[in-house]
Amino acid sequence: MWGIDLDRSLDISLKRQIYQRLRDQMINGTLKAGASLPSTRELAKTLSVSRNTINEAYDMLIVEGYVETRQGAPSRVARGLILAQAQQSAALQRQKPASVPTFLADFKTGQPDLRQFPRYVWQRISQKSLSEMSMELLGYSGPQGLTQLREEIAAWLMRSKGLAVDARDIYITAGATQALHLVADLLYADHPEILVEDPCNIEMIQTFIQKGYTVTPVPVDAQGLQTDALSMDHRGPIYVTPSHQFPLGGILPAARRAALIRFARRCGSYVIEDDYDSEFRYYGEPATPLYAMAPDRVIYIGTFSKVLFPALRIGYVLVPRELQSRWSRLRTYTDVQNPPFEQAALAEFLRTRKFDRHIAKMRKLYRERRQALLDALRDFFGEHWRPWGDASGLHLAVEFTGMVFDEAFREQARRARIRTVPLEHHCMRKGRHADKLLLGYGHLEPDEIRLGVQHIQRFIEEYFKEHARIR
Amino acid sequence: MWGIDLDRSLDISLKRQIYQRLRDQMINGTLKAGASLPSTRELAKTLSVSRNTINEAYDMLIVEGYVETRQGAPSRVARGLILAQAQQSAALQRQKPASVPTFLADFKTGQPDLRQFPRYVWQRISQKSLSEMSMELLGYSGPQGLTQLREEIAAWLMRSKGLAVDARDIYITAGATQALHLVADLLYADHPEILVEDPCNIEMIQTFIQKGYTVTPVPVDAQGLQTDALSMDHRGPIYVTPSHQFPLGGILPAARRAALIRFARRCGSYVIEDDYDSEFRYYGEPATPLYAMAPDRVIYIGTFSKVLFPALRIGYVLVPRELQSRWSRLRTYTDVQNPPFEQAALAEFLRTRKFDRHIAKMRKLYRERRQALLDALRDFFGEHWRPWGDASGLHLAVEFTGMVFDEAFREQARRARIRTVPLEHHCMRKGRHADKLLLGYGHLEPDEIRLGVQHIQRFIEEYFKEHARIR
Repeated sequence: MWGIDLDRSLDISLKRQIYQRLRDQMINGTLKAGASLPSTRELAKTLSVSRNTINEAYDMLIVEGYVETRQGAPSRVARGLILAQAQQSAALQRQKPASVPTFLADFKTGQPDLRQFPRYVWQRISQKSLSEMSMELLGYSGPQGLTQLREEIAAWLMRSKGLAVDARDIYITAGATQALHLVADLLYADHPEILVEDPCNIEMIQTFIQKGYTVTPVPVDAQGLQTDALSMDHRGPIYVTPSHQFPLGGILPAARRAALIRFARRCGSYVIEDDYDSEFRYYGEPATPLYAMAPDRVIYIGTFSKVLFPALRIGYVLVPRELQSRWSRLRTYTDVQNPPFEQAALAEFLRTRKFDRHIAKMRKLYRERRQALLDALRDFFGEHWRPWGDASGLHLAVEFTGMVFDEAFREQARRARIRTVPLEHHCMRKGRHADKLLLGYGHLEPDEIRLGVQHIQRFIEEYFKEHARIR
Repeated sequence: MWGIDLDRSLDISLKRQIYQRLRDQMINGTLKAGASLPSTRELAKTLSVSRNTINEAYDMLIVEGYVETRQGAPSRVARGLILAQAQQSAALQRQKPASVPTFLADFKTGQPDLRQFPRYVWQRISQKSLSEMSMELLGYSGPQGLTQLREEIAAWLMRSKGLAVDARDIYITAGATQALHLVADLLYADHPEILVEDPCNIEMIQTFIQKGYTVTPVPVDAQGLQTDALSMDHRGPIYVTPSHQFPLGGILPAARRAALIRFARRCGSYVIEDDYDSEFRYYGEPATPLYAMAPDRVIYIGTFSKVLFPALRIGYVLVPRELQSRWSRLRTYTDVQNPPFEQAALAEFLRTRKFDRHIAKMRKLYRERRQALLDALRDFFGEHWRPWGDASGLHLAVEFTGMVFDEAFREQARRARIRTVPLEHHCMRKGRHADKLLLGYGHLEPDEIRLGVQHIQRFIEEYFKEHARIR
């Protein structure tokens, strides 16, 4: 009767079920415009529910305009309700979640060892920060980030890198990716062309590509950006990784730094300095940020994803003063601000120097792993390889004499459950680095590293034997 | 000697101080290219530090390329280091933080009562979520958001609004602002023109304006968007608030909803449905989302900022399937993902129905406050006003017969420590709503509301008396 089947086992109220059934009939035309609804008494009896339930369902239909009511007359179906229901396209098959193979050797890059993170300490600090947080911070607290966090970051930049920064020049972001996204938005109107190192982290410059920037590569050698190659008529930003070039690993020499700054001054350009992992230098101090040379020209991007853990989603940017008010405005209309909880916890983690201790511990651990990787490469590859770059970070670029690694190699390796990225993947101009692989070691135990290198060695041997046979 | 003053009270190591002083002299030209550095023995003696400290400082200079070293020869200053130091522009005076006046009457809009939030319960849940979180979630867990949160949101949409949604169609965002930002980025390439309600929330459409969209207003009446006025040759998205029009308060009638969907189908447009506060309907059920009518054409945006607290930074979007893979890609290159901690806590808050209880409590509270506002208006303004819109949300649009409220009024009121926004502030075409004020009441106790209305009444009386005298 009236096409209404009620299901009392559902988590939806009866009034809503009645409302929905009637509504659907009006939209698909079963109940026509002008038709009168049954009296509440009649429908209540038919469905064995209270009249009150029917009244509430009718109220919903009236409020949302499905039914029109006039004093004394029965309620009638409104006009103009019919709507052909489009199904969501059947062709859009839902993608199955990609099955994650268990790798025999997993040398993915940029991956800190999450097993080492002091979770219990972090939990305790998070709990304390949450319970002590002022009520105001549950509201909006502004686009720049919590003051106490910015002050702790400033203090830490001073004690770890000797960098004197005013906490008011620090802007918290939702990780380095968001920082780049904001920079891309901020500078697009000035001039939508960007110079980038080649090779560089191809994922990180996607935000510029998506935004519509023209991306112009500048070659890199073992020391970093080849500033000789900087063209003279550039406008727009320049994206660099001077503390530990990704992926080749060079530290940009002082003279090139000065040349880069002079070039940026001449062009009226901003230099975007991505300092993604310089905390992990294994012999000696972290390199000094380029920012120290020209705080008016350099936009410095730091992140806690590698040092602590990626899910924290906290990065920070040293923003030149000329850009600060535009930055704040842009962030406000992008996503307002970071949540305050992780910010407060991180501030406390820094203040109590637990951060410094964690870095010191991880630096030692990663250094051992790097050494394990070098030892294993020597043992399994003899003289036929050499490492590139400075002894720092979580990955190593390795040149294998005479080899050629391409996407076919990568895919074949993946099928053999070996994950390693040919360096060419990060090159815009192909052909200069085809003999190199990237090996991320930060997340692996020395045993896993050794076993992984053994697997790679066997795979490479087989692969190139097969390759030669086919040719 | 050598221009190096060491300060042993600083939090910077001596080696770094030595490195910095020498570096600065090379950059400003005091130490010239080719000059040889003092021997480590000599400098150690002069500065009364160990030779090892000097060695480490020299290593930093060598690694960063300030100094060149050759077997057997003394270390020399590299060439090309000199850099004119630009000071950050002195003209850029730092802005003083705007002093926040204590308002006598603070009717700001969109402000939930944070005092009512069950902080202790939330803390307990946060702590539990954090301690039970799997290690994998400390890494990257994908742009769509945690599965358990999406499933709980789907269950809640079903039990609260009767909306059947597959959890796989839900995308978590960093609040509704980011949702709009992503939508603006996503649809820009299709056609950079957007239709918006006029009046609408002028802050929320900033992201489209910033992005470069042409914004075309469509008039609104007491029921919401006037679909008769939809022009026939539109492309690009349409931004609406059908459950509770901001700021006038109408619920869009079913026939207009159907007309809007038919229009969007004809134009190949997406409708952006911003459901910013429909949880708080005081008599009857929340209005059904437009999304239910056309899940292939409507991008539904929900938020927890109003229901829980703004600092949570969690919103969600029901994304039509055709847009899902582009959405994921875009989010990945925007800021990767939300942090998992708040997501896990919110999922648990929903699962245990603490969320439903909180909403029920707040709905009762806000209803009382709304009533207190209506009572106070009647007592202080007699017959010379009328409320607009549905009995829901955290603000009321009030028409005061014969008055004209403009930015001058707003500013004068602010000086008298009264915060209220003339509705014209949210209008693109001026003049239609000059007699209306917006009064946000959600964050105020009934006493504060009554006192605030009294202050406003006195101020308005004085202001218009003065105004009339001047004219």
